[in-house]
Amino acid sequence: MNRFETNLRIPGPTSLPSAVREAGARQMINHRGPEFAAMQERIVGGLRTFFGTANDIVLLSSAGTGGLEAAIVNTLSPGDKVFAVSIGSFGDRFAKIASTYGADVTRLDVPWGHAADAAAVVDALRAGGPWKAVLLTHNETSTGVMNPIDELAAAVREEAPDALILVDGVSGVGAVPFRQDDWGLDVVISGSQKSWMSAPGIAFASMSDRAWEAGRTARMPRFYFDLAKHRESQASGQTPWTPAVAVVFQLDVALGLMAAEGPEAIFARHAACAAATRAGLDALGFSLYADPAHASQTVTCVNLPDDLDWKAFNAELKRRKLVVAGGQGQLTGKVFRVGHLGTVTLDEIIACLGVVEEGLLAIGRTITPGAGVAAGQRAGVESLGLTARSTVGA
Amino acid sequence: MNRFETNLRIPGPTSLPSAVREAGARQMINHRGPEFAAMQERIVGGLRTFFGTANDIVLLSSAGTGGLEAAIVNTLSPGDKVFAVSIGSFGDRFAKIASTYGADVTRLDVPWGHAADAAAVVDALRAGGPWKAVLLTHNETSTGVMNPIDELAAAVREEAPDALILVDGVSGVGAVPFRQDDWGLDVVISGSQKSWMSAPGIAFASMSDRAWEAGRTARMPRFYFDLAKHRESQASGQTPWTPAVAVVFQLDVALGLMAAEGPEAIFARHAACAAATRAGLDALGFSLYADPAHASQTVTCVNLPDDLDWKAFNAELKRRKLVVAGGQGQLTGKVFRVGHLGTVTLDEIIACLGVVEEGLLAIGRTITPGAGVAAGQRAGVESLGLTARSTVGA
Repeated sequence: MNRFETNLRIPGPTSLPSAVREAGARQMINHRGPEFAAMQERIVGGLRTFFGTANDIVLLSSAGTGGLEAAIVNTLSPGDKVFAVSIGSFGDRFAKIASTYGADVTRLDVPWGHAADAAAVVDALRAGGPWKAVLLTHNETSTGVMNPIDELAAAVREEAPDALILVDGVSGVGAVPFRQDDWGLDVVISGSQKSWMSAPGIAFASMSDRAWEAGRTARMPRFYFDLAKHRESQASGQTPWTPAVAVVFQLDVALGLMAAEGPEAIFARHAACAAATRAGLDALGFSLYADPAHASQTVTCVNLPDDLDWKAFNAELKRRKLVVAGGQGQLTGKVFRVGHLGTVTLDEIIACLGVVEEGLLAIGRTITPGAGVAAGQRAGVESLGLTARSTVGA
Repeated sequence: MNRFETNLRIPGPTSLPSAVREAGARQMINHRGPEFAAMQERIVGGLRTFFGTANDIVLLSSAGTGGLEAAIVNTLSPGDKVFAVSIGSFGDRFAKIASTYGADVTRLDVPWGHAADAAAVVDALRAGGPWKAVLLTHNETSTGVMNPIDELAAAVREEAPDALILVDGVSGVGAVPFRQDDWGLDVVISGSQKSWMSAPGIAFASMSDRAWEAGRTARMPRFYFDLAKHRESQASGQTPWTPAVAVVFQLDVALGLMAAEGPEAIFARHAACAAATRAGLDALGFSLYADPAHASQTVTCVNLPDDLDWKAFNAELKRRKLVVAGGQGQLTGKVFRVGHLGTVTLDEIIACLGVVEEGLLAIGRTITPGAGVAAGQRAGVESLGLTARSTVGA
């Protein structure tokens, strides 16, 4: 946004508000003292609002992937039949963790770019089972698709009521309405560097009573990621192992900012940024990878035209301090991704679109300057419900 | 050290130098870009000096305990015979991780407060085996004892040459001379919040060729802590999962400071601070928990006299901004611990002793004011080799 600050448009880590950054510079404290205990309690309280739960939410010092591992090993035993719905790289990863620890995993592989369909999930569930757990991805970061997690969960509850529903919510929860308890989700995982505007290093695990109960007999080995140990420590204001204290400082500030802004405003902001990103890129001639009906509110995955030199284009973006993400897994070299979650605002997206226009022009593509930013701005303000009293210059 | 900054004398997290703190406030970057790659490479290079190794050292986003788990699950299979030498809480933890993942663990429990004896280890090794691995603690944080790790490793190598030697080096490496390669240690683990003057959140795992080779057939399940995946990512400047970027920023600065100071000066500083702590507390009538021959250079464990009201005493310390650690496990309520590792300097230890004197006086103990600080100062400067040309006022 200026010559010295990157417009970091990757889907995490996300840019940090100044107050959050500064909290990362605090001096260390005793992680077994009252100040830490109070912080942890405030953070869990703040998270509950966005998870839509009354659960104890446990803080793990790890990346989100550690949280996914925790979800698996704290609820399952080797040999358990697990149904994994994968819509991309992170769905594949979740399934892989389960099989690594000895679960008997059956996969439903949804074509990338699409969300899972509740009816298809039901059909596939019926073909096997009984299922001990179903793995779902809320927001698939690799493809820019957001699953209709409420519909999927309802279908699973109907068809396989005893199956635990384990949800990778890493890159979505906090940015869009989410109601873990109402939707009957047994484990939901997220991570500090996504919607939570903090540095990476802390994962969150929110477990239902049913999941805690399953944990009592779950035999997959676990030590570092033992959630029961974490819950027990948390009851006395601590963590079982030394926590990533500086990230906890940041989360405390970030959740304060989120509470001040309010969930509805946060969700509206994300919706507007997502709409602007999609409209702006579309206006510049890009096609979007995701099924529009299930396009993610936190990350947009953009097809790279065959005749566009990605390296040259990306170099032009980077020269102008815009950092986007490349493709992952089978999409490497085929797409790029624009993150719009966390502290993102509409003007940052417009700035991003402006640099995309510059980059396209710099590598000799034919576009109409202003088309992307104008389309983005129109979609963004429309999403925000801002309408002009009289239209000037249209 | 002033009314607004705590003298944080717990054995980790340790106080951060200002430049390190400030690095924690940096804006996020793309963790899959060249800036991160360069940082990771510098950090690994800096760590190698202090580990005394030419190994690839892998960065894990976790507490040190996660590193201990990585050491176990990346080298062993369920049923493997493991010999665990425990001299305290952290030795117990290391053994527990191994048994949790299905190792057949035989323990040598050394009476707390003492180091392990090489001859006793040899005798115990002879009574069983063949051993797939031996677990050793370098510095036992719970008791303030530093094992003669070189002697122990030599004995293990002699008696059980095929056994992998896995070392918990979390709270010692970086503060004292350490030569992983010369001593034939197969895995050494440490953590960012100890000698490394950074916030918690990153663990280090240094694996020998023999350990990597063992990893190829090791069948304990692992995903998040899969070291081979980390090594592979690291070869291209990345990490397999999103790393704790802000801690990496801090480590980069901290290792720069450590390189500038130089290993010999760092080790001398730690030795002086340890000597001062012990001498000062001894002069104030405290008895020390650890066998003096193996007292730790990074943490001192102090017996609480039966007639000393710990809560009242500790409240007086805290009022004066001195934070020490209580006892762990079976030592809860029986000892307190003073950390002297990382950025610690002799004057901070003297300040700490001064507050201990004040605290003792405040709760009505009979001491000679100045006795602790003077004894600490004498021991510290003697350790540093600073001698007066002529003694004035003695």
